[in-house]
Amino acid sequence: MKRIYFDNAATTALDKEVLDVMLPYLTEKFGNPSSIYSYGRESRLAIENARKSVAKILNAHPGEIFFTSGGTESTNTTVSAAIHNLGCRHIISSEIEHHATLHSVEHAHSKEKIKLSNVRLLSNGHVDMEHLRELLANSPERCLVSLMHANNEIGNLLDMHAVGNLCKEFDAIFHSDTVQTVGHYPFDLRNTPVHFINGSSHKFNGPKGVGILYVNENVKISPFIHGGSQERNMRAGTENVYGIVGFAKALELATTHMDEHSKYINDLRMYMMDELKKQIPDVGYNGDLYGRSLYTVLNVSFPKTEKSEMLLFNLDINGICASGGSACTSGADAGSHVIRAINSDPNKIAVRFSFGKDNTKEEIDMVIAKLKEII
Amino acid sequence: MKRIYFDNAATTALDKEVLDVMLPYLTEKFGNPSSIYSYGRESRLAIENARKSVAKILNAHPGEIFFTSGGTESTNTTVSAAIHNLGCRHIISSEIEHHATLHSVEHAHSKEKIKLSNVRLLSNGHVDMEHLRELLANSPERCLVSLMHANNEIGNLLDMHAVGNLCKEFDAIFHSDTVQTVGHYPFDLRNTPVHFINGSSHKFNGPKGVGILYVNENVKISPFIHGGSQERNMRAGTENVYGIVGFAKALELATTHMDEHSKYINDLRMYMMDELKKQIPDVGYNGDLYGRSLYTVLNVSFPKTEKSEMLLFNLDINGICASGGSACTSGADAGSHVIRAINSDPNKIAVRFSFGKDNTKEEIDMVIAKLKEII
Ligand SMILES: Cc1ncc(COP(=O)(O)O)c(C=O)c1O
Ligand SMILES: Cc1ncc(COP(=O)(O)O)c(C=O)c1O
Repeated sequence: MKRIYFDNAATTALDKEVLDVMLPYLTEKFGNPSSIYSYGRESRLAIENARKSVAKILNAHPGEIFFTSGGTESTNTTVSAAIHNLGCRHIISSEIEHHATLHSVEHAHSKEKIKLSNVRLLSNGHVDMEHLRELLANSPERCLVSLMHANNEIGNLLDMHAVGNLCKEFDAIFHSDTVQTVGHYPFDLRNTPVHFINGSSHKFNGPKGVGILYVNENVKISPFIHGGSQERNMRAGTENVYGIVGFAKALELATTHMDEHSKYINDLRMYMMDELKKQIPDVGYNGDLYGRSLYTVLNVSFPKTEKSEMLLFNLDINGICASGGSACTSGADAGSHVIRAINSDPNKIAVRFSFGKDNTKEEIDMVIAKLKEII
Repeated sequence: MKRIYFDNAATTALDKEVLDVMLPYLTEKFGNPSSIYSYGRESRLAIENARKSVAKILNAHPGEIFFTSGGTESTNTTVSAAIHNLGCRHIISSEIEHHATLHSVEHAHSKEKIKLSNVRLLSNGHVDMEHLRELLANSPERCLVSLMHANNEIGNLLDMHAVGNLCKEFDAIFHSDTVQTVGHYPFDLRNTPVHFINGSSHKFNGPKGVGILYVNENVKISPFIHGGSQERNMRAGTENVYGIVGFAKALELATTHMDEHSKYINDLRMYMMDELKKQIPDVGYNGDLYGRSLYTVLNVSFPKTEKSEMLLFNLDINGICASGGSACTSGADAGSHVIRAINSDPNKIAVRFSFGKDNTKEEIDMVIAKLKEII
């Protein structure tokens, strides 16, 4: 049975070209980048070239890019730095953040007595900017605002400029979880009012277990993981050299083809929504599909029936990969905190389909045919 | 020019067999282990099989093994857990620990007001057990004892049983940094009185960027990196699946050949020491070479001369990789904190040669010939 992979927001297949640039670092170029001899220097050079390439693509300085083990570690680093280095005593976030943010800020709240506020959300899932202004204006303490760029379940895109400018007005620190957009969105960080963003290469056809943290040069932070002097004393531990090289290559490829892929993928997603509406009664969608939304994600709501409750299970039996919420909780089966938070109808079942460059219309037709059978 | 790699304590080459088991997870088996469909389940299964294999080899329960991004993250997790979950308010460590420990415990001391004591060291670099007992006996607060198993610069081996039993007597928590010994030493954790150990697969011909933390089932800790529910809620972030699979395979191979390799490597090291003594005047060694010492490391001291101060540099020019201290500070050129701490003669230059299964006597002969030329 051919598998149809419609869960590219959970993770993506590694590109062959990316693997090819990683392989030398998995074989003969194994030196420790901190070693001073030739083997070490070639690893060090590979890391610094990767950093330059990533920085250039995001229009940042190389000194603002730090490699980490993934998006989650980067977010943890940010929250810790905001509290311990930047004097933030109040975190403003939202209920629809990824668990990497939700659980980091909850930890800061419960263990470090940091005040925690959630900004109100509009029914389409966007941040209520007036409420955000109110929260900032009424905070005597310095704030960390942590609001994700693209929501991984419904695709909603934040207006980073609007939020960043508001943060500036109130001298707040602004972190945006950009794990869903790095590699899928054209960043221009030198002209974006944000202090911290993060990325994870397995979301754009790069390797798992490697990420970045961008730290704006105007903020000075200390490490979250202490030890050796790697990453200019900012992230200790022997570097995942092949992962770092793979991150940079994947970002380069994603950027080269972004215009083309984004149009192609957006067409797929809109085609699927249109066909679903035509062919299946009472389908709807969650989020701001026709407004500010990332082109990779389609969150469909189906009427709740005995059959639709088994939908993911039945899709899986038919070789179709889709998800009910973010991957990292789908095992727990607690339903989606995002869908709950935007107050969608409890009599609906939400399914996320998320697309990549290798998906096709034929696959969509096959999935819709199956959905009609199942429901 | 053929390179001679005598720096296996810094990092090792990835085994071809290890890469082979990683490759499927770098190509077609790319599913997110948290996803419930088939692609996800095969990744999850790979991780759980890796965990079982690692646990079996170390004689631990699978529930005691957590995968991390490396030895450094594991140590940071331990120090944080000891303070925040296990009530330790006093850390007893030593001056010759790896920076992963030194800087984690210094951070705990300076930022969290944790008392910090260094146990006295004997001139051969071993822990003064009487002083350790004194420190424990005189501590009104619960202690974390963090003492490394094999020192990465001089190879000294700690008596984990003696230290662990002493910790038991005083209800202290015991962490041993085993990054140099996992994969090089036969562990039997069910019969070893230790709460935490860590490992990093790039030290035993596995991939970089992946490690383990062993947490004895009798201690309950909370995560250091917050987010998704990976690693049974203990370490958030999408798993480095191919890294984890590679870790387990590398440990399996290392264990299968341990008897053979350890004898072979120890013979190399002793051969080198013997030949050095015969052929170069006034050489000595640091550590307990003929006593409790790991077979991989030889720390040689050369008389300080203009020429010997340029020794590493000249070795490098001749394609020979060796190091002055731990890799992660060799760039900084601050000299070795380990050698300083055991109070070795300031008129000596210390060079670490560390060996692996692929080194040969011929290489040693070539290195000694070069050393004679250089000095
Ligand atoms: C004794 C010791 N502890 C900890 C580490 C840190 O391991 P990693 O760099 O893989 O995080 C190393 C090696 O770098 C080491 O030799
Ligand atoms: C929006 C968002 N933030 C953070 C993460 C965490 O990234 P990682 O699992 O690579 O650490 C993910 C994906 O898992 C995500 O989708």
